[in-house]
Amino acid sequence: MKALVYNGPHDVSVKTVPDAKIERPTDVLVRITSTNICGSDLHMYDGRTDMESGRVLGHENLGTVIEIGNAVDRVKVGDWVCLPFNVSCGFCKNCERGLTSACLTVNPGTAGGAYGYAGMGPYSGGQAELLRVPYGDFNCLRLPSDAEEKQNDYVMLSDIFPTGYHATELAQLKPGESVVIYGAGPVGLMAAMSASLKGASKIMIVDRLADRLALAEKMGAIAIDDSDGNAVEQVLELTKGEGADKGCECVGYQAHDPSGEEHPNMTMNDLVRAVRPTGILGVVGVFVPEDPKGPDKLSKKGVMAFDFGLFWNKGQTIGSGQANVKLYNRHLRDLIHLGKAKPSIIVSHELPLAKAPAAYKHFDARDKGWTKIVLKPAA
Amino acid sequence: MKALVYNGPHDVSVKTVPDAKIERPTDVLVRITSTNICGSDLHMYDGRTDMESGRVLGHENLGTVIEIGNAVDRVKVGDWVCLPFNVSCGFCKNCERGLTSACLTVNPGTAGGAYGYAGMGPYSGGQAELLRVPYGDFNCLRLPSDAEEKQNDYVMLSDIFPTGYHATELAQLKPGESVVIYGAGPVGLMAAMSASLKGASKIMIVDRLADRLALAEKMGAIAIDDSDGNAVEQVLELTKGEGADKGCECVGYQAHDPSGEEHPNMTMNDLVRAVRPTGILGVVGVFVPEDPKGPDKLSKKGVMAFDFGLFWNKGQTIGSGQANVKLYNRHLRDLIHLGKAKPSIIVSHELPLAKAPAAYKHFDARDKGWTKIVLKPAA
Amino acid sequence: MKALVYNGPHDVSVKTVPDAKIERPTDVLVRITSTNICGSDLHMYDGRTDMESGRVLGHENLGTVIEIGNAVDRVKVGDWVCLPFNVSCGFCKNCERGLTSACLTVNPGTAGGAYGYAGMGPYSGGQAELLRVPYGDFNCLRLPSDAEEKQNDYVMLSDIFPTGYHATELAQLKPGESVVIYGAGPVGLMAAMSASLKGASKIMIVDRLADRLALAEKMGAIAIDDSDGNAVEQVLELTKGEGADKGCECVGYQAHDPSGEEHPNMTMNDLVRAVRPTGILGVVGVFVPEDPKGPDKLSKKGVMAFDFGLFWNKGQTIGSGQANVKLYNRHLRDLIHLGKAKPSIIVSHELPLAKAPAAYKHFDARDKGWTKIVLKPAA
Amino acid sequence: MKALVYNGPHDVSVKTVPDAKIERPTDVLVRITSTNICGSDLHMYDGRTDMESGRVLGHENLGTVIEIGNAVDRVKVGDWVCLPFNVSCGFCKNCERGLTSACLTVNPGTAGGAYGYAGMGPYSGGQAELLRVPYGDFNCLRLPSDAEEKQNDYVMLSDIFPTGYHATELAQLKPGESVVIYGAGPVGLMAAMSASLKGASKIMIVDRLADRLALAEKMGAIAIDDSDGNAVEQVLELTKGEGADKGCECVGYQAHDPSGEEHPNMTMNDLVRAVRPTGILGVVGVFVPEDPKGPDKLSKKGVMAFDFGLFWNKGQTIGSGQANVKLYNRHLRDLIHLGKAKPSIIVSHELPLAKAPAAYKHFDARDKGWTKIVLKPAA
Repeated sequence: MKALVYNGPHDVSVKTVPDAKIERPTDVLVRITSTNICGSDLHMYDGRTDMESGRVLGHENLGTVIEIGNAVDRVKVGDWVCLPFNVSCGFCKNCERGLTSACLTVNPGTAGGAYGYAGMGPYSGGQAELLRVPYGDFNCLRLPSDAEEKQNDYVMLSDIFPTGYHATELAQLKPGESVVIYGAGPVGLMAAMSASLKGASKIMIVDRLADRLALAEKMGAIAIDDSDGNAVEQVLELTKGEGADKGCECVGYQAHDPSGEEHPNMTMNDLVRAVRPTGILGVVGVFVPEDPKGPDKLSKKGVMAFDFGLFWNKGQTIGSGQANVKLYNRHLRDLIHLGKAKPSIIVSHELPLAKAPAAYKHFDARDKGWTKIVLKPAA
Repeated sequence: MKALVYNGPHDVSVKTVPDAKIERPTDVLVRITSTNICGSDLHMYDGRTDMESGRVLGHENLGTVIEIGNAVDRVKVGDWVCLPFNVSCGFCKNCERGLTSACLTVNPGTAGGAYGYAGMGPYSGGQAELLRVPYGDFNCLRLPSDAEEKQNDYVMLSDIFPTGYHATELAQLKPGESVVIYGAGPVGLMAAMSASLKGASKIMIVDRLADRLALAEKMGAIAIDDSDGNAVEQVLELTKGEGADKGCECVGYQAHDPSGEEHPNMTMNDLVRAVRPTGILGVVGVFVPEDPKGPDKLSKKGVMAFDFGLFWNKGQTIGSGQANVKLYNRHLRDLIHLGKAKPSIIVSHELPLAKAPAAYKHFDARDKGWTKIVLKPAA
Repeated sequence: MKALVYNGPHDVSVKTVPDAKIERPTDVLVRITSTNICGSDLHMYDGRTDMESGRVLGHENLGTVIEIGNAVDRVKVGDWVCLPFNVSCGFCKNCERGLTSACLTVNPGTAGGAYGYAGMGPYSGGQAELLRVPYGDFNCLRLPSDAEEKQNDYVMLSDIFPTGYHATELAQLKPGESVVIYGAGPVGLMAAMSASLKGASKIMIVDRLADRLALAEKMGAIAIDDSDGNAVEQVLELTKGEGADKGCECVGYQAHDPSGEEHPNMTMNDLVRAVRPTGILGVVGVFVPEDPKGPDKLSKKGVMAFDFGLFWNKGQTIGSGQANVKLYNRHLRDLIHLGKAKPSIIVSHELPLAKAPAAYKHFDARDKGWTKIVLKPAA
Repeated sequence: MKALVYNGPHDVSVKTVPDAKIERPTDVLVRITSTNICGSDLHMYDGRTDMESGRVLGHENLGTVIEIGNAVDRVKVGDWVCLPFNVSCGFCKNCERGLTSACLTVNPGTAGGAYGYAGMGPYSGGQAELLRVPYGDFNCLRLPSDAEEKQNDYVMLSDIFPTGYHATELAQLKPGESVVIYGAGPVGLMAAMSASLKGASKIMIVDRLADRLALAEKMGAIAIDDSDGNAVEQVLELTKGEGADKGCECVGYQAHDPSGEEHPNMTMNDLVRAVRPTGILGVVGVFVPEDPKGPDKLSKKGVMAFDFGLFWNKGQTIGSGQANVKLYNRHLRDLIHLGKAKPSIIVSHELPLAKAPAAYKHFDARDKGWTKIVLKPAA
């Protein structure tokens, strides 16, 4: 089959690799029709992880079931399914509580697995024609009759819509509360969409890219341009000096200033100031325990110079980590089906798999207008 | 009246000061019979805050009501009452949700007030014969018939018992879960007592002082001696390599190594390692936004070199800040009354007010056996 | 002052009564500009309660502060305020946890007080020119600059908007869930608006009055006409036979069939069938412990022939009771201020106080188009 | 294999039946060493259900794994395991949220399955030498090294310990709260043990059997003898007239007065009176949607004459239904392992399988001292 292979930093290509196939009786085999490039793919693309060369990327996947193992009970051949980026077993101590992002089974020695992802197990990615899905009955989200037609919406259920939603869940966002979101990339925009679904009052979103901020405004958010570095002050002014009730971090460790210099603590320290005492911060932007190419001594070891004193003084809370997609994808699917959520609004490009290498280049360069790319391996 | 006055770093004395009195119709005036010295008093005593000289210390107070303002409805003269260290109004945006530690009324411009405390409003402390209690109906916890006899227990409801309990609440500790507590001082011991009340499975408590660890063991906790700096490894071994389900920080920014050198990030970074993925950390040890006398450049600005990458990777949560005493003091009072909790177990000294200056000296030096001091101004 | 006085069943009139005034130092005196007639006023109007004649009705009140007691700190003369229908103290065991509908102070011997309401304390109602508000700092919700202009929206914060919202809170309604609401009267419509704010998926609302159902559809709900008594089947069909995720009861004990015969168990038993196993029912429609004029032997004693076996078999939950208005009114106010909620959409009539008696007659008869009446005593 | 077979009302016998065996690749086969007779077995034994004759009873099971299907990953031959009475799939809409008592897969058309239980699917019971466990990786709780020795404790994890615990969870019991429990049978006693683990203050338990009440007192509860029908008054007196904070129903629809006459509404109506306004009731006693042999017209249809008016007036909440055993069994197991819980305290008889028919007779007659029977099929 054709697949997008990681060869090394800034080097991916479409190659022919062995077909994915059923390996265990609980497996499901999916023909991929939509698969996104994710912002976190760029950490690997940039060589900022220990991703092995030769592996197939892609953890935001949707398609049709073409074969099932003999222990699969619920999923049927022909079903349209969307796959959570988390590979999880469904029966370990964490999965049984819904914490599928920390599955103890699929990636022994660590917590949590994913398709085509550095350090998250041996699972091949879905930027390919076929994908093997372990524990298929647990991992497949079945889609309704409009699956094919709305697949650019439903494919967002694999990661970024639940991840944006997770930011608001970690922040315990309640109807009527205000929220400030750092980052108007795909995840930040999905956090804004989630905040809107939850009945937030003021939804303030901070970025420096005009096209992203314009998209955010279209979604009903208040765009805050941080080009002058005064986003915190803008938030305080919009909240009578108190700060927002809640905050979401949707940027991660490669946050940088306008000059491009990275400051991994920039968004977190701003959030502590921009959010009110007793406020809660949901952090879904990726931070890493080691970053050998990080900008300074602390960051190389995954350490952040964090304003902990102010944080404690304000009595704030931080929730962090990867989304447990299965906690949310069912309800978000229903909202898409009923027309109450349309996450495809952020899709800027639909491309055949063959164009994936070029797409990675544009996306990595944050080229204007390359907000979100959906690859179509079956096209 | 006699009162313990802060004159400056390492200098307190008992002086005659003007009597506390009813100033507002909602005030209650209390004759103090028991008032503790708290570990956080030491931050002021050590000159590590901007406490004004001339002020009366003491925020852990209990006594009898001797006068009430004309707008006080519930509290009566003669009632035995215990006062939360938080001064709070009961009607602001935070108080009405129970977040009395962040009252917006009593200390305008900041969130939260306290008696005799640096930066927490003009309220005089209770290491004195009399105490003025603002918003008396809201702030007084009335005590049952055994109040006088059990006042060494009930006085702990003013701060450290609810604060230890708060650590377990921030950590969302559930029955059957394991927990690791950093610090076996009074607050850490109260966290251990709270964990036990909540049906925790393994309660592991980390310290280096033998007398404190012995007390912890008496309370059913597993004592972990960190003298060799391997507490994390001991916790991992006790939890099959996984880490504890939950963690409590009860030390704060003056954490130090055996040599006495301060490392404000020591306990937090250890906790991240000692607690399992998806675990939750409750932080009630005090951290400050500025610490001009801190050990290094970061800490002077209240910044911590925090292992944020590992924290995020493990998908952990941190809850922080001062306890909202009123959320817990009523139920903890009932457990004391029924004999199901006996926090006075940690009291090492009962002393008249006149001996307070000497007591501060011993307590500050962590002299052996000086675990918790209750002053008796009426004695 | 002029006020609407209850003289006896089906007999109310506007009379001159002694002016409301400051009686306690914590009181606030309000000149009422908007005050609604509530569906629960009709229970009194119909003589189905033990309301004393001579009392002033009205518990949905808004106006401007004209005088404050000398212990009032936050509220100022000139403030526009909306008053929760619950009179509450702010410092009892229930109020301090936010359960202001069960205040133990204001109506000794029972739990909970209200203005102008049978069995809920001596407090005079606000269908009058002036209203005395006890514990003013706790009970007054201050309104923003658009208070006067949007008072038909803000006045709904006194009761029905929070009460409709409470139904969805008791039902623990989450984004993406479906909900069925029994009753498209003012409270049911507010429940539908709340469900929409919370991101519910399908919002199904059951009634038999065409004008109410049309209004519900305008608000984005699915109208279910129960004229043929098959609402449950319609809900099951809309939910693949499963039943709705959650249910709200917004009718109460005077539920009746098309012939007008009362069946106090009708809505509850239908809800048990219309909601899925593990579902949760929020019940804000009024039920009473005694109803001497009830339609049968059981109902006279406040007993319901309830399908408890099916309820238990489905593992459902019921939450019940009056709304704790203060838990919600602040956030709902902010949504009104930002234009994200417009509860005045249900207002059908604005009338001077003098027309109140006629309005009661029309409202009681469920005359077509009399959905919600706002009285204007200051007009 | 030998198994206890239901032949009809009051008629069970040990027979040789075909061996249980692996039928699906996800199955696990267990040799049963301990299996309890449950109070809910008596509903079947009494002919008060539509149990089919010829079926094997027994849903409280523990033993060792002797064979696994080829899709089983976690469970190994030789493991000691305890099986939740709920049979569940782990991947349906309910299971993925932890609501395994309402599994949508294992008993199509209904919600929830169980071993050897009327109306809960085709699964054979474990009062037998062998048991087939569907979805073995999800349903087996693995036990630690002391499994064999403490099996009388661990076997309680299959049902009654988690069910008693579930009563306290449905009641949202918090540390320091008081609770009243109706029924001091095995489940009620386990609810009392759970309340104690959770740090409840007053634990009041209501029954009329002296031996059960004595056992309850041993566990630290306050025994309330309802022989005179004044249990509610006793509870009110113990709680200053307020009522308990929370209530647990552990009796069910066969509640009866001292004369033996059944009153299915007796415990619920008492609980509404014995619990305070805003209180919460957890109902785990079994109630049925149809009871053709019920004592009166209402009960035959599963209808209860319930004091709904008083319930609503007090703003109470009811949570109901079978326990989701997997939500609790892991943590309760750890507490047994650490010696912090000893549910075997209630075991009155250990008997070989051959004596099961006689044991049913004694247990059904509530013969003195027959509190809880553990059968030992491997003995």
